[in-house]
Amino acid sequence: MKFQTVNEKISHLQSIMQKNQVDILIVPTADPHLSEYLPEYWQVRSWLSGFTGSAGTLLIHKEKAILWADSRYWEQARQQLSGSIIELGKMLQANDVLDWIIQNTEKNQVVAVADDMIALSQYQHYQNVLSRHDIVFNAISDLVDEMWHDRPALPMAPIYPHLAQFVFESSLDKINRIREKMKAVNADYHLVSSLDDVAWISNLRGSDVSSNPVFLAHLLIGLDSCIIFLHKNKLNDESIELLKQAHIQIRDYADLDDELAQLTGVLWVDSGKMAVRTLAKLPENVILYEASNPSSLFKSQKNPQEIQCIRNAMVKDGVALCGFFADLEQRFANQQRVSENDIDGMLIHYRSLQAHYVSPSFDTIAAFNGNGAMPHYRAPEQGSSWIEGDGLLLIDSGAQYQDGTTDITRVMPVGNVNIQQKQDFTVVLKAHIALATTVFPENMPAPMIDAIARKPMWLRQCEYGHGTGHGVGYFMNVHEGPQRIAYQSAVNADNVLKLGMITSNEPGLYRQGRWGIRIENLVVNQKVESPLETEFGSFLYFETLTLCPIDTRLIDVALLNDEEISWVNQYHQMVRDKLSPLVEGDALAWLLARTEAIAP
Amino acid sequence: MKFQTVNEKISHLQSIMQKNQVDILIVPTADPHLSEYLPEYWQVRSWLSGFTGSAGTLLIHKEKAILWADSRYWEQARQQLSGSIIELGKMLQANDVLDWIIQNTEKNQVVAVADDMIALSQYQHYQNVLSRHDIVFNAISDLVDEMWHDRPALPMAPIYPHLAQFVFESSLDKINRIREKMKAVNADYHLVSSLDDVAWISNLRGSDVSSNPVFLAHLLIGLDSCIIFLHKNKLNDESIELLKQAHIQIRDYADLDDELAQLTGVLWVDSGKMAVRTLAKLPENVILYEASNPSSLFKSQKNPQEIQCIRNAMVKDGVALCGFFADLEQRFANQQRVSENDIDGMLIHYRSLQAHYVSPSFDTIAAFNGNGAMPHYRAPEQGSSWIEGDGLLLIDSGAQYQDGTTDITRVMPVGNVNIQQKQDFTVVLKAHIALATTVFPENMPAPMIDAIARKPMWLRQCEYGHGTGHGVGYFMNVHEGPQRIAYQSAVNADNVLKLGMITSNEPGLYRQGRWGIRIENLVVNQKVESPLETEFGSFLYFETLTLCPIDTRLIDVALLNDEEISWVNQYHQMVRDKLSPLVEGDALAWLLARTEAIAP
Repeated sequence: MKFQTVNEKISHLQSIMQKNQVDILIVPTADPHLSEYLPEYWQVRSWLSGFTGSAGTLLIHKEKAILWADSRYWEQARQQLSGSIIELGKMLQANDVLDWIIQNTEKNQVVAVADDMIALSQYQHYQNVLSRHDIVFNAISDLVDEMWHDRPALPMAPIYPHLAQFVFESSLDKINRIREKMKAVNADYHLVSSLDDVAWISNLRGSDVSSNPVFLAHLLIGLDSCIIFLHKNKLNDESIELLKQAHIQIRDYADLDDELAQLTGVLWVDSGKMAVRTLAKLPENVILYEASNPSSLFKSQKNPQEIQCIRNAMVKDGVALCGFFADLEQRFANQQRVSENDIDGMLIHYRSLQAHYVSPSFDTIAAFNGNGAMPHYRAPEQGSSWIEGDGLLLIDSGAQYQDGTTDITRVMPVGNVNIQQKQDFTVVLKAHIALATTVFPENMPAPMIDAIARKPMWLRQCEYGHGTGHGVGYFMNVHEGPQRIAYQSAVNADNVLKLGMITSNEPGLYRQGRWGIRIENLVVNQKVESPLETEFGSFLYFETLTLCPIDTRLIDVALLNDEEISWVNQYHQMVRDKLSPLVEGDALAWLLARTEAIAP
Repeated sequence: MKFQTVNEKISHLQSIMQKNQVDILIVPTADPHLSEYLPEYWQVRSWLSGFTGSAGTLLIHKEKAILWADSRYWEQARQQLSGSIIELGKMLQANDVLDWIIQNTEKNQVVAVADDMIALSQYQHYQNVLSRHDIVFNAISDLVDEMWHDRPALPMAPIYPHLAQFVFESSLDKINRIREKMKAVNADYHLVSSLDDVAWISNLRGSDVSSNPVFLAHLLIGLDSCIIFLHKNKLNDESIELLKQAHIQIRDYADLDDELAQLTGVLWVDSGKMAVRTLAKLPENVILYEASNPSSLFKSQKNPQEIQCIRNAMVKDGVALCGFFADLEQRFANQQRVSENDIDGMLIHYRSLQAHYVSPSFDTIAAFNGNGAMPHYRAPEQGSSWIEGDGLLLIDSGAQYQDGTTDITRVMPVGNVNIQQKQDFTVVLKAHIALATTVFPENMPAPMIDAIARKPMWLRQCEYGHGTGHGVGYFMNVHEGPQRIAYQSAVNADNVLKLGMITSNEPGLYRQGRWGIRIENLVVNQKVESPLETEFGSFLYFETLTLCPIDTRLIDVALLNDEEISWVNQYHQMVRDKLSPLVEGDALAWLLARTEAIAP
């Protein structure tokens, strides 16, 4: 059966639900590894609904369907859902979906979710809440599988070692650090299912997930054993050798069930990063110790050698961006037509000229005017907008290099821009500078410093719906925890700012249907080297890593104070100093023009 | 038996513990109403340990005793515990006491606490955690009672109506607002034990607790009944009449047990403000609904008439402070000896000249030089320090007027001050201004804006251990929830900034043994009246209520930027405009001198 429309799919799924006595089916955006970006095989929610955003929960009810999305995606979802029976649910709080279910379900009705698409912690939470309302909640086998006939295969990309010259801690040393944590809590085993953790621990990389250099695997660490579960034919000899050096046994991806079935003692799992299905065969008498994977915090704190590599990757990325922006401005000057989609190709072209380039680190967002008001817009592959006339072009892009992951957003003027656009840009810049220049106590909860960025916006009654900063990996996922600079984010023992963490600084401002602005650099937490005071504890500051001019043609200098003007000029001086020896011709001319100092 | 020393008390208590098979006794700072300031009758921890701070937990072990205190009290506790066997435990996190118990208790040992000194929520938490470690945890009758022979009596101060001219909502209307909340969650009853809630709901006041105009009572609200439990002979005719108008039955304080024993259905309690003992007689089949008292949020949001009254109270307080400071400076000029303790008497004198003055709103902190480094220092009644020589005098004081509660901290120079003192003062002022001038989205979690105040301090690697802002009542407790501007504070649905809330703004800086600085005004949340933007939601700003000069002789103007200088000058212009028509002579001269504009 081939479905022509979203409505046909929903209607067919409703009949399958009825057959299986399911009243409400939750279709999350998730896979058995709880990855942020999913292999196509698990893009069930997107296939069913037509909504392609990276987050959202589809809820199929007997009579209706709702797609819950957060504010980043309201505009995109509204467009992509139009014509289908799926309503848009505007998600404001994490509990909105659950609240809707409680209000729209009768006693003893059955709510279900695929057991390979829900984390243990979320399953426990839903179970707790719904049982109090006498609603049955089951994690079941995926109902969509039987109707998705042309479902893509599981990814089978090759696995390779992270280049030795960019690796500064052996896999065995990492595992032994984890074992110390296990011993401290009396855990006999630790099962890791999150792909970035597995890749970091094993010093291997893959490309099973778009833009993230990871591969499908589970890792089971014992106190004196370690097993990796993956599709063996992805491994080359070097990878096998590396695993051998780390005393990691290789087993097939599907063998995990059998291994877990024999386990005894205490098993440490991160219940937020562990699918219910993964533990299905675990004996009842195994005691679960539920806490964050220790590797998540370990890998977030980059060591000095890694930071030096990342600085080099930032120089390469800056050089590529000079080439790209010079080229783009030239095309505009020559009246050449450029579409949003062309931007992606141009960026890949310039970045791939750089050493150790691997891939984009996420899908490029090139969004002109109204499209920029959708913070996670992605231009359609066919028929994307032409960038012509007057307005603002927002470009959020990044690259994976073997020596670092980049993520940068810039906005440039196209044609004429008006004073309100300049004011908006300048307010976002003020927010960016406010955060970039702060100092804070070591181990400060990351959500707590978000307001420092937002104050300049709040003073003008402006606000943005997304967080200000996410963690970034080292040749790894462009979004990695545990830290998140966002007042909406949960405050917990892991979500704190520690030495060596890399985070984005990306305030924004979005006017629906008109334009969007975001200014994003990556920053790394460094210790204040010559503290003015030493009696009040240890303090960190942000070293800015990203090297690319911020378009001064969009600045309304009257809105900046002296400190802000000098931050802009110092930043541009640094960008010029680091990049100008490495670029020439149009790219150099562009760099010099765009790093000219501004004056009050 | 009369005890000569703290060590004798501890040793005797250890023998009582042994007799009762208690291995560790927790002695919190708490009473059956979970008040912040305790009637003397419940000052068990203070009586046992000699440490008089307003917070802290004493832990009696078979062989040792530890007093856990937060950073505000480390210095004071160190001094007051010296000579006793009690060790100081520096409390950094709420779980420190519990963690110590876990690490220092063997399986099946018994940990106990008096059931009238622990909140239900804390009891549940301790029970949960300790049972996992096979430690027995019991809430028992108070063991100290049998050894405390000269224990003070329960307070019996008269109860009186809050003056009608200052009350803008009847008790019945308040109760009906609460009933709406009860209906929404299907609660049949709501038991209120927190004294400020009872006083606010009943529109009555008392003085059972020092500085807080409250009285010992419980209030049981049904959907069509309401009973207050209190010592009846405290009531005058007017109070009885007022209760009658609100259809509140009067029962004796001790009758609560009997009434609760007959209850059926769902009972709403705030488990953080409800002692275990209070619910001892509740039938097992009563279902507890645990959530914040709705009155806590209601009373935090002052209505416009209340705010107008508070503005008037602030004018009166400002007038009193002009008199006080002019007098104090005169005494210094005349070489008259002034002790820290004299300050308290002088403040009470000047404030009591004002209409509707009731009492101080907390124990005055008048602290010279090193004493100022203890944020909650209270000068001893006998032998307090003389304020002489050079240095900084910190005065934190407040008053209860029937039309408002005040709380203000100022620091003044005595003799010569040095540049580091001025720098410290100016940095605290910058923090104060940073918070005073912010704007923020309505319902912002209060802890999230704390960093705005702290950034100027962090930039100099300075920090303070206390919160930046606490809620303040309306002729009510000087510390009231639910909002708290403190990054150390829990983020939850109640701890948010809403229209009409009054909060302190009081950053500080403390140099042990040298000096302490704190600048505190009260501010009220007001809606931004002419928003520059309307599409990003509703925004609030802080209207400054407190009217008293900030000593410009301590400002290092070079550290202030233009906006900060103009904030100081505008604030002083407002203080001068509002107070100068109401003061004369020395007080006027002082006001004019201290509100002179500063220039870069």
